[in-house]
Amino acid sequence: MISVKPDAFKEKRDIYVNLGHEVTEIDLKQGRVRVQQEGGRQNNWETFDRLMLSTGAMPAEAPVEGLTAEGIFRINTLQDGLDVMDFIAREQPQNAVIIGGGNIGLEMAENLLLRKMKVTLIEKEAEVMDILDPEMGALVSQALLDMGVRLYRKEPLQSVDLKKNRVRAIVTNNRIIPADLVILALGVKPNIHLAETAGIELGPSGAVRVDDTMRTTAENVWAGGDCAESFHLVSRRPTNIALGTVANKHGRVAGSNIGGKYAVFPGLVGTVVTKVGSTEVARTGLQEKEIHQTGKQYVTAVINSMTRAEYYPESGPIAVKILAEKDSGRLLGGQIVGKAGAAKRIDVLATALHVGLTLEEIADLDLSYAPPYSPLWDPVALAARVTRKKLS
Amino acid sequence: MISVKPDAFKEKRDIYVNLGHEVTEIDLKQGRVRVQQEGGRQNNWETFDRLMLSTGAMPAEAPVEGLTAEGIFRINTLQDGLDVMDFIAREQPQNAVIIGGGNIGLEMAENLLLRKMKVTLIEKEAEVMDILDPEMGALVSQALLDMGVRLYRKEPLQSVDLKKNRVRAIVTNNRIIPADLVILALGVKPNIHLAETAGIELGPSGAVRVDDTMRTTAENVWAGGDCAESFHLVSRRPTNIALGTVANKHGRVAGSNIGGKYAVFPGLVGTVVTKVGSTEVARTGLQEKEIHQTGKQYVTAVINSMTRAEYYPESGPIAVKILAEKDSGRLLGGQIVGKAGAAKRIDVLATALHVGLTLEEIADLDLSYAPPYSPLWDPVALAARVTRKKLS
Repeated sequence: MISVKPDAFKEKRDIYVNLGHEVTEIDLKQGRVRVQQEGGRQNNWETFDRLMLSTGAMPAEAPVEGLTAEGIFRINTLQDGLDVMDFIAREQPQNAVIIGGGNIGLEMAENLLLRKMKVTLIEKEAEVMDILDPEMGALVSQALLDMGVRLYRKEPLQSVDLKKNRVRAIVTNNRIIPADLVILALGVKPNIHLAETAGIELGPSGAVRVDDTMRTTAENVWAGGDCAESFHLVSRRPTNIALGTVANKHGRVAGSNIGGKYAVFPGLVGTVVTKVGSTEVARTGLQEKEIHQTGKQYVTAVINSMTRAEYYPESGPIAVKILAEKDSGRLLGGQIVGKAGAAKRIDVLATALHVGLTLEEIADLDLSYAPPYSPLWDPVALAARVTRKKLS
Repeated sequence: MISVKPDAFKEKRDIYVNLGHEVTEIDLKQGRVRVQQEGGRQNNWETFDRLMLSTGAMPAEAPVEGLTAEGIFRINTLQDGLDVMDFIAREQPQNAVIIGGGNIGLEMAENLLLRKMKVTLIEKEAEVMDILDPEMGALVSQALLDMGVRLYRKEPLQSVDLKKNRVRAIVTNNRIIPADLVILALGVKPNIHLAETAGIELGPSGAVRVDDTMRTTAENVWAGGDCAESFHLVSRRPTNIALGTVANKHGRVAGSNIGGKYAVFPGLVGTVVTKVGSTEVARTGLQEKEIHQTGKQYVTAVINSMTRAEYYPESGPIAVKILAEKDSGRLLGGQIVGKAGAAKRIDVLATALHVGLTLEEIADLDLSYAPPYSPLWDPVALAARVTRKKLS
């Protein structure tokens, strides 16, 4: 998972990477940062001409006591993953409870099942994967149940039962679940403490406000990645999306501008994909609750089709949900849940969102067809065609 | 493969389907067609108010004698496929020779290999799959060789060796190949004989000329499917593409207009996908030889990447070729050859062609990423980024 090691940064790029050095304060007036070395007493000031803030995201927490007890993990860094694996090897936990049904929660559920644990997932909402609308999330909930996960929906975490500072059970509004391994997967929030205390402005999403060159409101300070905002091309508002694709682009743009070139981040459309067992999940654009926030009127439909020609051996079900602006017929968002070959179809809808295509234009696209890949009408185009009928 | 049976046409749609009835002449002045019933002596005239020409395509032929001998098949209709299967069951041929390395030739090669025959494919061009540029076709040629096909390139068919009107061998410029089953797969041409003799105009592609409502130059006559032209949105010229997706759309548009509604066929961008063993093949837009015909100046690059994150178990190689207009940077075409998950990525490029995206815009698309689906930079976006460097 590590693309470039610290040595290579120095040797190949002339960049000094200081691991174990925490910046505890930014002094904008004097152009310097206070650095605390791990385990050291020193507390040096380092000066800068230009500063890049890439402080990332951190796991969201629940307002519940005892979540720092032994056996309870967050999944944020590579080391966190290694720590869980060490704990499993050492303690051989039997009952894993995952709190939260987002990307990380689902990936952990699958992988702990593979390690032969009894896996329970509790989710405070009606369905897992709240980046999907509930009827699409329900398909993912069902996939988890089919895999053997004990899934409890509408059951927020209420407390943890500890014994000698070690987790023994998880308590919801409805039940007590024995637990010797707990994964806290409540999503992430931008890590903005440093920026905030330095007086660097945050945006409406709660992340660091940047312009399209990734410059913050402070002179000579740029920001990018999970801690920074992005312009959402569909809602036309700043948003905070903590994904590697976005962070990579932010970094390139900020780096170009800091280095004296010129680049802009063109905005995003909110594309996310994930996989749960053999079930593929994807979304792009806005989901219903986000459309409500914009005040737009919309139409929507869900179609059920197949990933390949229906007589083709590896064909499996796929559901596509389309959301489009009333009257104009412009696409606002799409959601996909299905078997192999389903998720990557979201890219057509993402491309359509970038350029503001209407449902009619999407239905007319010359998309590829051959029996191993698609029914004659690609499910995405079919969904656009079916949704379009709701416009009139 | 039969979506609607003749009975259902009558019962559910009030449409009379007359199988075994061949139209041998169109009389435009009197609005009637001459119908010859199979095996019958009758030769009736049937009148029409509005006529739809959907005569399809027929296999291209080679200027070689003896190609009607026993053991030599074309693959055009469902019955042709059944005939080959009957022949195999009855004669148990050992040595199959396929003439032509297009879609049909490749599909037949794979399926005859699965039936344990020794399969030889001869191709007159430097590489198979001439809908790809040669360096991309070479990847498909290699896939055939890896599957165990004996492939002879730059070897056009010269003659067939018969014994008692039964095929015994295929002769190229270079060798004699023993053959007891031969598949003639030289591509298709539009079946325009009826239209032509009735004085209905053909277009520059050789297929029936139509406007965007699928109306021919003759009053009250529409055409659609493999026998008709389509407007190519990239070359801005009429073209003839014999694919089910196109035919389905043609039929809907023509049917709407014949029935008194209004619909237009919006044009196509030349998207084609196929599969050879585990190798996926796709193209859209124009290939180099087609760009030359337009006189446009262009830049091009091929990138090699992976279908998924490189550390992900099912990740495999993918090559993407991009062609773009010089100066403007607008996409002109794309070609993909790779393993599972490769081909359907062509749909992003097809969508980009519909709206005239530039390489910069494609590189900036918010395409989906998660390790099971893609490297962080989707190969299609990466290819656009790499090709863009050639613009300056």
